[in-house]
Amino acid sequence: MGCSQSTTATPTAAPTVAKALDLELTYFGIPGRAEFIRLLLAYGKVDFKDTRYAFPDYFANKSSLDLPFGQVPTLRVNNTTYGQSLAIARYAAKLTGLYPADPLAALEADAVVDALVELFNAVVDAVYKTPDAAQQQAKFDTINHETFPRMLRQLEARVVGPFFTGNDVTFADVYLLDFFHNTLSNDKITVAGTDFPKLQAIVD
Amino acid sequence: MGCSQSTTATPTAAPTVAKALDLELTYFGIPGRAEFIRLLLAYGKVDFKDTRYAFPDYFANKSSLDLPFGQVPTLRVNNTTYGQSLAIARYAAKLTGLYPADPLAALEADAVVDALVELFNAVVDAVYKTPDAAQQQAKFDTINHETFPRMLRQLEARVVGPFFTGNDVTFADVYLLDFFHNTLSNDKITVAGTDFPKLQAIVD
Repeated sequence: MGCSQSTTATPTAAPTVAKALDLELTYFGIPGRAEFIRLLLAYGKVDFKDTRYAFPDYFANKSSLDLPFGQVPTLRVNNTTYGQSLAIARYAAKLTGLYPADPLAALEADAVVDALVELFNAVVDAVYKTPDAAQQQAKFDTINHETFPRMLRQLEARVVGPFFTGNDVTFADVYLLDFFHNTLSNDKITVAGTDFPKLQAIVD
Repeated sequence: MGCSQSTTATPTAAPTVAKALDLELTYFGIPGRAEFIRLLLAYGKVDFKDTRYAFPDYFANKSSLDLPFGQVPTLRVNNTTYGQSLAIARYAAKLTGLYPADPLAALEADAVVDALVELFNAVVDAVYKTPDAAQQQAKFDTINHETFPRMLRQLEARVVGPFFTGNDVTFADVYLLDFFHNTLSNDKITVAGTDFPKLQAIVD
């Protein structure tokens, strides 16, 4: 990050604000839809309570949990609980100076995140919502031969360099890291990150 | 909007910024994923070129279009084209003063939008991705008896009033309007907006 020594691009006020907050992130003990948020908060050195449920415990306790949209992840900020993983991630990005103040840079970072979510959701659909083995294999064939190569090529073309929107790390770069480590690494994915050198360079 | 006469909540600088921009929104001639963006820009009286393709014309011209993620909607801002409908909507909301400056209000508005997108996607899945009539009916049964009532109840509970995040209209309220007019109105949806008086009051 070329600007790490400068105060121009890094909102130095953010950590002070974050310190005053009492944060609790609730999810399962897997990366899933919470790892992006965990990485953002960790990157920004923001303290938070990282509550992880085993699946049986979650379902046993679900009725007593504060779940605004009936699902996890949730983020409690002081006394209010918020839902929806991407909305929480964007908030975490703002706390940690990883959400661009410039609206056009934010549009670009938001678009990259939405594109990566589409790919993540395609894998979730194949893994968790397709019990039939042949149908699952057909979905992975589409993922490996069409969806992933096409969209990763499109994402590669968006990299202005060294990061997605230029010189500053944004939450889109952090999500790419999560995506490479936790989605692209799935045993049934045959697409290699190294085929996309600009993306691989962000992750490295 | 209680604050429309005041300069406190409405960023008066935004329209000036927007006026300097040359904007073109490209999509099909249906509400779909672009109507939210059209409504936001119209609400903010931001001039934009509203390019609408008939489906055959779109597919005939697709290879010559500038489509960052291979799909529409796209928004061209001066000489750069951006993709991903929600990212574009959030940018349009910033241009028109409908995206909260306060990070927690923005988190709440973003979460409402993401929840409504889940409902919209469930209908898109049933209508466009389920050719088998019996399977389509089964999906609409789930939508009508489970997904929609549950999540609309959850959304109703989030309304601080008179709008989702309090006294100011945000892009979440505009998306609810679009959702009521263009998704909830689907012939196969039996859930009524009037069963959710706080949501209906926002739309009215």
